[in-house]
Amino acid sequence: MKRIGILTSGGDAPGMNAAIRAVTRKAIHEGLEVYGINYGYAGLVAGDIFKMDEATVGDIIQRGGTFLYSARYPEFAQEEGQLKGIEQLNKFGIEALVVIGGDGSYHGALRLTEHGYNAIGLPGTIDNDIPYTDFTIGFDTSVNTVLESIDRIRDTATSHERTFVIEVMGRGAGDIALWSGVAGGAEAIIIPEKEFDMKQVANKIRAGRNRGKKHTLIVLAEGVMHADEFAEELGKFGDFHTRVTVLGHVQRGGSPTARDRVMASQMGSYAVELLMQGKGGLAIGIENNKVVSHDILDLFDAKHHSEISLYDLNNDISY
Amino acid sequence: MKRIGILTSGGDAPGMNAAIRAVTRKAIHEGLEVYGINYGYAGLVAGDIFKMDEATVGDIIQRGGTFLYSARYPEFAQEEGQLKGIEQLNKFGIEALVVIGGDGSYHGALRLTEHGYNAIGLPGTIDNDIPYTDFTIGFDTSVNTVLESIDRIRDTATSHERTFVIEVMGRGAGDIALWSGVAGGAEAIIIPEKEFDMKQVANKIRAGRNRGKKHTLIVLAEGVMHADEFAEELGKFGDFHTRVTVLGHVQRGGSPTARDRVMASQMGSYAVELLMQGKGGLAIGIENNKVVSHDILDLFDAKHHSEISLYDLNNDISY
Amino acid sequence: MKRIGILTSGGDAPGMNAAIRAVTRKAIHEGLEVYGINYGYAGLVAGDIFKMDEATVGDIIQRGGTFLYSARYPEFAQEEGQLKGIEQLNKFGIEALVVIGGDGSYHGALRLTEHGYNAIGLPGTIDNDIPYTDFTIGFDTSVNTVLESIDRIRDTATSHERTFVIEVMGRGAGDIALWSGVAGGAEAIIIPEKEFDMKQVANKIRAGRNRGKKHTLIVLAEGVMHADEFAEELGKFGDFHTRVTVLGHVQRGGSPTARDRVMASQMGSYAVELLMQGKGGLAIGIENNKVVSHDILDLFDAKHHSEISLYDLNNDISY
Amino acid sequence: MKRIGILTSGGDAPGMNAAIRAVTRKAIHEGLEVYGINYGYAGLVAGDIFKMDEATVGDIIQRGGTFLYSARYPEFAQEEGQLKGIEQLNKFGIEALVVIGGDGSYHGALRLTEHGYNAIGLPGTIDNDIPYTDFTIGFDTSVNTVLESIDRIRDTATSHERTFVIEVMGRGAGDIALWSGVAGGAEAIIIPEKEFDMKQVANKIRAGRNRGKKHTLIVLAEGVMHADEFAEELGKFGDFHTRVTVLGHVQRGGSPTARDRVMASQMGSYAVELLMQGKGGLAIGIENNKVVSHDILDLFDAKHHSEISLYDLNNDISY
Repeated sequence: MKRIGILTSGGDAPGMNAAIRAVTRKAIHEGLEVYGINYGYAGLVAGDIFKMDEATVGDIIQRGGTFLYSARYPEFAQEEGQLKGIEQLNKFGIEALVVIGGDGSYHGALRLTEHGYNAIGLPGTIDNDIPYTDFTIGFDTSVNTVLESIDRIRDTATSHERTFVIEVMGRGAGDIALWSGVAGGAEAIIIPEKEFDMKQVANKIRAGRNRGKKHTLIVLAEGVMHADEFAEELGKFGDFHTRVTVLGHVQRGGSPTARDRVMASQMGSYAVELLMQGKGGLAIGIENNKVVSHDILDLFDAKHHSEISLYDLNNDISY
Repeated sequence: MKRIGILTSGGDAPGMNAAIRAVTRKAIHEGLEVYGINYGYAGLVAGDIFKMDEATVGDIIQRGGTFLYSARYPEFAQEEGQLKGIEQLNKFGIEALVVIGGDGSYHGALRLTEHGYNAIGLPGTIDNDIPYTDFTIGFDTSVNTVLESIDRIRDTATSHERTFVIEVMGRGAGDIALWSGVAGGAEAIIIPEKEFDMKQVANKIRAGRNRGKKHTLIVLAEGVMHADEFAEELGKFGDFHTRVTVLGHVQRGGSPTARDRVMASQMGSYAVELLMQGKGGLAIGIENNKVVSHDILDLFDAKHHSEISLYDLNNDISY
Repeated sequence: MKRIGILTSGGDAPGMNAAIRAVTRKAIHEGLEVYGINYGYAGLVAGDIFKMDEATVGDIIQRGGTFLYSARYPEFAQEEGQLKGIEQLNKFGIEALVVIGGDGSYHGALRLTEHGYNAIGLPGTIDNDIPYTDFTIGFDTSVNTVLESIDRIRDTATSHERTFVIEVMGRGAGDIALWSGVAGGAEAIIIPEKEFDMKQVANKIRAGRNRGKKHTLIVLAEGVMHADEFAEELGKFGDFHTRVTVLGHVQRGGSPTARDRVMASQMGSYAVELLMQGKGGLAIGIENNKVVSHDILDLFDAKHHSEISLYDLNNDISY
Repeated sequence: MKRIGILTSGGDAPGMNAAIRAVTRKAIHEGLEVYGINYGYAGLVAGDIFKMDEATVGDIIQRGGTFLYSARYPEFAQEEGQLKGIEQLNKFGIEALVVIGGDGSYHGALRLTEHGYNAIGLPGTIDNDIPYTDFTIGFDTSVNTVLESIDRIRDTATSHERTFVIEVMGRGAGDIALWSGVAGGAEAIIIPEKEFDMKQVANKIRAGRNRGKKHTLIVLAEGVMHADEFAEELGKFGDFHTRVTVLGHVQRGGSPTARDRVMASQMGSYAVELLMQGKGGLAIGIENNKVVSHDILDLFDAKHHSEISLYDLNNDISY
């Protein structure tokens, strides 16, 4: 193998650039050539591909987003799209591929591997909703971004004795809510993985107020319901001077944290090692602080598990 | 005069604590006693008042919000409320007052002065919408908080070639939008002070795209319309992959910037000097980098002017 | 057991307050009373002890440092000091203790346990140099603080084509240097755990320059040598426009990251559980993402191991 | 005039990129062509010059440093150097120039103007030490960076009851120390513009300790003496558990604040307007919130004045 390609797919996440850098530098270090593919699978099919050297990825480790751009491209689920992509791989002499993105992008990686072009997936998403990895690239940054916002909102909540409902991302997973909620000292964390009783939430707020507590922070995962809806439901149990904040896309950007950069670097480097061993169809993960790989096929049958113990912990210490 | 009081009123703003500290320390330095009044005029009327010393305001200069809490209390517009407040001032021997808040809180300060209790107002609001001051306490911090969010959103906007509409605070004033928009390199800034033509906005986005521009950022002042509404209107002129973010209350919190802390310190110290000269009914401001004061009465006839030259500047350099 | 005490000892670290909060809230949740002990073992001996309730630890989760203050108190290594401490424990009716600090503070915890007062240690230090835990409370925050500085220095290094030697903390351990170095894209990381050859460092810089690289960043662990000394040695192999920065105590402060707050909360809660089971003489750690405990005695024979694989990784991708 | 050039010179400062962007975009907006000159006057003489378009300066407004690189080049003080530079200007058809840098770089701008190539200077330096401007580009960012460090150090200082001497940049000027000192609540600010008495400093620390104050922060301008030296001198008056931090080059980097970006944008745009009016030999400044210009010659006779009133303010409120 002489030449590999790299692309980012799906929603962008902080640390993707660090991963691109690691793949590129490691590959060049090992004597390979590296081609960047812009706009994910769409760019692969369109041939938006260019040669990179070690300087191409200089000064990007600290940048949010992905300098290879990203795009959703459902057409790659069809064989027709895949064959067009392979045509471009042949044209540019690319023999193997690293794909950074959510699990949606792993399907494409698996298909390419089946066609004889080894592809390795890296978990790049803030949502932390990918099986067989404790953490995804971007999650730690996103949680810290949310946390900064919670800290800011606490100032205002305290000054005015208010209840704030803060809606955070995560798609179907409650991970961002859980981690930022515990770290932010939220009185309630509402996640898809756990049923909740609005009356209990209201009682908890009331109990806190009676003890003299100055504010209530509720962190709500977007996978449960909209914050406006939640506030309205809560209002049926009393007037808690509730305000709503939907953090939105700020959660997806920003300079990656140390952990995201280090993990992205480890994963990117390991992906190159696996490709050099002639392996493909694998998804990289981190489990128990070790970088690991699993068959992509196994991921499709598996389910991500949130760290639910944090939920119970929060009930014991945030009140 | 031996004893002064201090309260914060209206929406909280970063730097209020720095102002409280400056008033307290300066007054003690000048041999006065200082009493803190919790929850603004509501706390004044309720007698929620306590003696402060120099240590009470230690380690608060860097904190967002207001450790004296704030509240809206429309009842203070009535003489009945004012007389109840005066009763408390008498009870605690407070002869004069510093009031930190928006111009709503200046009415109360004026009434107290008329009743013989000199009161000085400090402009504490992120909105920068107070006349006779170039800047209000909290504005600089808020603009920088918005800017951080714009920078984060740019990462995602670039990665995905999207248009983002970012709704920022400011009530009727466009100042936060103007400053953060210019600093964030926004392609369009929409403020109440300037009519806009949605078709022109759409054309500008299209022109940028045609030149290869990867993203469009639109900063929208809340005083114009809701971001959702704006996005819908914009959508009538084409599909720009528009996403909406409403920054919300994060804009009101956070550790104050250097400038807000310094300005709050200057203003707080000056307020004490004026009180010691037997003056009241004044609003402190900063004009041309000098701390000044004006009759509160004059403010009621006046209007805040945004730095509209920034609007034209942005048109010349952001495209 | 009805009443526990808590103290922080040794150098302060971000997240100590989150740990104090978790211990306090968890204990109260379980029906215990909690007493705070100021200034570590010195305050224990002096009887600087006060009752805390749930509100005492409100609004501290986001604060750096330790609101219980810390102090080094070598006298507690002697039995005389310990007996004086026990006298105070008896006086205040404190039956068990949580001690947050570096491994120096674990000796005291062990001695108290031997005297019949169960004590549990939590690893609070930025240095990450404690055995039987993958991470210490404060490490993640410190690494991110260093990283911010590296990112800032890179701006200047790039603009001026300079070499920067950045000295970071860590005492005898290279962990802060390793993590911040990889995350910061440092061309060289110099740690006590690995021999280095100054000539090779110089050659690497020269090779980078020849390829057009605009800057060189070297992260140096304080355990190796002083940055000035390093720069002087490096200068013997060529003029690399070297500048030196010693980051100093900024590395010890600041609002803790999400991870430090979550981990501190988990550990604090677990410490209370162990005390309630009548256990003492244990050190809490986190291994493979699980909160664990070990006999303090075992720690004295053990050695902390840095994640040396990061060192090799960096050689492969930073050049 | 059809074509202008732009360069950055001297020490880099946050906001230089925002200024480059404004000059470039404004000039293109006005129908001019813009050439970037790398490495300041050195690059001018060497012909390291390239054409820029509006996209060249895209996505740089938020970046620290200068993407045109900077260099010190004393040879440009000699006519020989100037003539070589003019040769290049002729070769590239550049008729006028914008120079961003400290006052050292203004000499070159004046000489070029005298030779018939209009040049306008923009004040780009963190030190705020340029006459006829209230603020320089980079100053606000630098002060806020210092402030963040002070806030971090306060955590540790409080936890351990220590005295910290924090040495900050500013060359001969005390501005960074003054602003960050007031904003950071420093008990003492030591600047070149004001004599100080070490015994008084010691007495102030002692008085604070006697009142129960937990920490002392001293901000020292580098123009006075080295922090180590200061600490040693202070030590002659008592043991204050003094620690020293020299913030170093972190003060020069980082993403610029809103104010620096806005001011840089205003100045850059105005410089182009002046060049289009056929003017040269001018230095841009900001006075009383208005962007202004002065003859460079006048600057050479003038002196920068620090806002000394902040010094007295601090004595009244920080103790």
